[in-house]
Amino acid sequence: MADYHVRILPDNKLITLSDEQNLLKAMTAAGIPLQASCGGRGTCGQCRVIIKEGQVCSSEAGTISQEEQRLGYVLACQSRPASDLVVEVPAGTKLGEHRVLLGEEQEARDARYGEDAEAFVLYGDNSYPAVELPVYRKIRLKIPQPTLDDPADDWGRLTRATRGETGIERLSVSLNVLRDLPRVLRDAGWDVSVALAEKDTWQGVEIAGVEPFPSGRKYYGLAVDIGTTTVAAELVDLETGRTGGARGSFNRQSVYGDDVISRIIHAEENPGGLEELQKAILETVNDLIKDLAGGLGIGQADIRAAVCAGNTAMTHLFLGIDPAYIRLEPYTPAANNIPAVQAGQAGLHIHPQAWVRFIPGTASYIGGDITAGVLATGMSEADTLTLFIDIGTNGEMVLGNNEWLISCACSAGPAFEGGGLRYGMRAMDGAIENVRITAGGSTVQYSTIGGGAPLGICGTGLIDCVAWLYRSGVIDRGGSFAPHTPSPRVRDAGGGKEFVLAWSGEAGGGSDISISEAEIKYILRSKAAVYAGIRSMLQMVGLPFEAIERVFIAGGFGRYINIREAINIGLLPDIPVQKYAYIGNSSLKGARLSLLSKSARDAAEKIAGKITYLELSAGNTFMEEFVSALFIPHTDLELFPTAARR
Amino acid sequence: MADYHVRILPDNKLITLSDEQNLLKAMTAAGIPLQASCGGRGTCGQCRVIIKEGQVCSSEAGTISQEEQRLGYVLACQSRPASDLVVEVPAGTKLGEHRVLLGEEQEARDARYGEDAEAFVLYGDNSYPAVELPVYRKIRLKIPQPTLDDPADDWGRLTRATRGETGIERLSVSLNVLRDLPRVLRDAGWDVSVALAEKDTWQGVEIAGVEPFPSGRKYYGLAVDIGTTTVAAELVDLETGRTGGARGSFNRQSVYGDDVISRIIHAEENPGGLEELQKAILETVNDLIKDLAGGLGIGQADIRAAVCAGNTAMTHLFLGIDPAYIRLEPYTPAANNIPAVQAGQAGLHIHPQAWVRFIPGTASYIGGDITAGVLATGMSEADTLTLFIDIGTNGEMVLGNNEWLISCACSAGPAFEGGGLRYGMRAMDGAIENVRITAGGSTVQYSTIGGGAPLGICGTGLIDCVAWLYRSGVIDRGGSFAPHTPSPRVRDAGGGKEFVLAWSGEAGGGSDISISEAEIKYILRSKAAVYAGIRSMLQMVGLPFEAIERVFIAGGFGRYINIREAINIGLLPDIPVQKYAYIGNSSLKGARLSLLSKSARDAAEKIAGKITYLELSAGNTFMEEFVSALFIPHTDLELFPTAARR
Repeated sequence: MADYHVRILPDNKLITLSDEQNLLKAMTAAGIPLQASCGGRGTCGQCRVIIKEGQVCSSEAGTISQEEQRLGYVLACQSRPASDLVVEVPAGTKLGEHRVLLGEEQEARDARYGEDAEAFVLYGDNSYPAVELPVYRKIRLKIPQPTLDDPADDWGRLTRATRGETGIERLSVSLNVLRDLPRVLRDAGWDVSVALAEKDTWQGVEIAGVEPFPSGRKYYGLAVDIGTTTVAAELVDLETGRTGGARGSFNRQSVYGDDVISRIIHAEENPGGLEELQKAILETVNDLIKDLAGGLGIGQADIRAAVCAGNTAMTHLFLGIDPAYIRLEPYTPAANNIPAVQAGQAGLHIHPQAWVRFIPGTASYIGGDITAGVLATGMSEADTLTLFIDIGTNGEMVLGNNEWLISCACSAGPAFEGGGLRYGMRAMDGAIENVRITAGGSTVQYSTIGGGAPLGICGTGLIDCVAWLYRSGVIDRGGSFAPHTPSPRVRDAGGGKEFVLAWSGEAGGGSDISISEAEIKYILRSKAAVYAGIRSMLQMVGLPFEAIERVFIAGGFGRYINIREAINIGLLPDIPVQKYAYIGNSSLKGARLSLLSKSARDAAEKIAGKITYLELSAGNTFMEEFVSALFIPHTDLELFPTAARR
Repeated sequence: MADYHVRILPDNKLITLSDEQNLLKAMTAAGIPLQASCGGRGTCGQCRVIIKEGQVCSSEAGTISQEEQRLGYVLACQSRPASDLVVEVPAGTKLGEHRVLLGEEQEARDARYGEDAEAFVLYGDNSYPAVELPVYRKIRLKIPQPTLDDPADDWGRLTRATRGETGIERLSVSLNVLRDLPRVLRDAGWDVSVALAEKDTWQGVEIAGVEPFPSGRKYYGLAVDIGTTTVAAELVDLETGRTGGARGSFNRQSVYGDDVISRIIHAEENPGGLEELQKAILETVNDLIKDLAGGLGIGQADIRAAVCAGNTAMTHLFLGIDPAYIRLEPYTPAANNIPAVQAGQAGLHIHPQAWVRFIPGTASYIGGDITAGVLATGMSEADTLTLFIDIGTNGEMVLGNNEWLISCACSAGPAFEGGGLRYGMRAMDGAIENVRITAGGSTVQYSTIGGGAPLGICGTGLIDCVAWLYRSGVIDRGGSFAPHTPSPRVRDAGGGKEFVLAWSGEAGGGSDISISEAEIKYILRSKAAVYAGIRSMLQMVGLPFEAIERVFIAGGFGRYINIREAINIGLLPDIPVQKYAYIGNSSLKGARLSLLSKSARDAAEKIAGKITYLELSAGNTFMEEFVSALFIPHTDLELFPTAARR
């Protein structure tokens, strides 16, 4: 085994690795994460790097063209050093500039909903109190001093007073509190501030601290949205309810695969794989915590509670719980409703005795993030029949009102997050997010996130692209290229046609940015899955589209989506655009609500228990709906009366 | 600071200590604990050692006679090395051969009750089931396998099945169990053995393990009696209820003082003092655990639960809880009812996730050991009016039946444990335990524990001694020596008379074993305190002695006591000897019952809540009773119609 030095450009970072390590893992470990949807299996072609100097030992990679090979491109996941190296990471390969949705008002104002003027941005119409019995709270207690006539023990006096004040019967105490209790009570003259930490429904409330009143220190809660692609966290002042800042970043598990299934497989097939995934997500969250605490100038131990909302697989991986059966019929997770654990045990860098709660989920593919989303919309408390859609790597949907809730999840695939496409990319700087194709496919206008040269195309750009390719006659309703198209942008590529969106001269990556017929059909399959999911739910409850009074769109993808175009390609149902509303990162919002309000926590539990999960793989409805939806906008044009026609 | 080598005889152990360390602490740390009632303050004179070679720097010690000084005797606690040393530990100084009462039948048969034939040995007449919902138990569950129609999560299925089987609503789970749950359930074919660990009333039940059925491993519980002087522990097979062995040893805290008050003072006055005391008791218990597990050939992690019964101060010190206010009016402890803690947190060397429970107490001086004792007697469930007496360093008494319970505690002082007397010693080999003085004080017959040469006199021997000194005319009813006694055993010692029980020739320690007038009066004060306590309780409830239908005597002291002589000196009330019964180590028995039976645990909680504590220092009753009881047998002879007269 030999060790080599590898210099990484443009960061000019020097790392050392053995001839048995691949570049992808070594670079990720060194803090230079690359895009790698397939989890390092050599199939997605995203982790391409350029070998500027030295020799590597690479497996053959079908995803690198001969011309690229000549320029020194290799897949990092398939390459091990055979000498000292200089390696360049091209723009677009590196992961890290991803825009994470934090649910902040300012950010959400950027959404295209505003521009469109037909749709609008909404923050959910839930009516939970802003601050009402936060998960960690302090109450003032004046405790009667012991006398010879009433010499009851300190802990007995404290619990009696706490029960009298709060009505809470099930009180436990941390040993540390008990150890110092006698002196603290007497030093305080029996006028104390008592910290109550709620664990979960079953485990009751813990007396987590006793201090002389008034207590000087502030105390914070952490809301976390553990997404498959991105992770967002927000600090909340638990006394005032005010935000102490929010931060987001990509989920470092991405290097092990883009979607939950490939991560579950990684956990199963590699010894220590589950631990690697757990470590990756913990590092992700812990770095956010460090940034947030640093930004606010508080200690991490001042964060005394956390509420996490994540999909079921992410929650399992976060806690190191075996996720294997999530992906196997009948899709049974280890736990939907995970008992609270202490931060120290979970490995979360907040106060080690802080309780970390998890918003309960309903099923393997309807997790706590969806419960949190439904909570944030307020739909479970309203008469209005509401559809909630969260399209990320998976598409999850909930339909219902204060009487019933039905849900389903469809494997939309990672298309809308840029996965599975050669030039697909996440919504980060350089991504084409907005496309207009005219003149029979000859003219392309686009804009990129950040305004720079295009590096690839993200989900919202893809929707526009398909809509306009159809409208301009380049493709037919089934997504096939028309036999004869005059556009110079349509060309043959090995195995089928493709359309060039940006020429190498204008693109930032040095090569043309194109979309192939196979990729267009892949996008149609993704949109068909979402649409068929919505239709299946409606069929289940015997209601027409018109019954839907409001649609909430959640998640990072939903933020940039052009509702009109999404209807045009048949991704979203053709109902008035005014009914659509964007709710931002509803998972983070739900976690935040749960931190601050007991009614919200109770509601979350009720929601998770109330949602009926419709397993789409059981029965034929979904498959029939799916097949009918594989066209632009649909086989049945009557379902899309307002969709743009050609 | 210089370091010296010190060789300890007869163990021939070599230790190194600096010229700033005293011999007592250094030897205790090296595993050679010495007797030291006063906690190393230089007043009890018990830690005498002989300097065979070398020089020490010693403070003056009034407790060492000039002759002894000539022989090289010094107090270890007052001596620091000034050169390398050879030190001999005389028999009687070393702590370690103490007989600890384990509550075992065989041992209790040794008691004098049997010989006496007037009293009898009884094991309590409680009727709790032998094995009924032990604190840690395993149940078999056949869990329905998930299907597409019923895909509920594993944890949900498990809790549903557990609730169905047990009716327990509040279930938590250890994260470790959850992590492996999916695979375990499937490997087991959904036929599993589920371990339920009861925490305490408030904290509910934890699912602590899931294994394929049948589970191969046995699981044990630990009952611990944390006494001030001695500590006893018993292993119990939680499935069958069979004992896995019992062990006892002295409490290593003894080096910091004989009674709870001196230990509390040590904790208060020395930085790190509380931690020292906690470490000492933990080491004591952990060594017992090691011995017990080793003896049974099981791993310490096979011990999955513990129930501790201790007096309030001991329980505080065991957990490192500030005990300061136990000794200050109004005598308020930090907690009477201590929530269960996990062994890892408590520092107990059993399974780290095992729950350690504490039998609840009533007040600072009526602790969990007394609740456990009352539990073991069964008196709280019987009509019979019963008096329960536990005389150790403190005297604790409970009077009552299934309708009411009243208790009090009197500072009997450590006389009955051999403390506070020059030749007093605990009930260990070489202690005079049985005395007969005849021929006007000239003839003394005695027997020692172990049958060897006498080293000192223990509590039961002292009672005999006082009774016979009175009977033979050496002392009067007030404990004063008669002005002219013909016995050669009565002599003047600096400051008063003394009576020689054993001459240096026959004694094992090389000097005469005697008892002084001051010491006799000290014993009378001790016996008066116990008697006055009993009288005060009776007065409180307005009942005469005759109303007492049964007396249970508990504890190590009670085991060797001669009831007849105890009545003769006025320590115990003059009621028929047949009413007295010996119950052994009732604290350990109560802890054992609690390990094995839920009814017993519920009863313990009820008992602790039901006992009315009579604070003897409030009001005049006790003081008046005490003063009247300072005579042999009492001022009022009518109270002792059957007591031996002279």
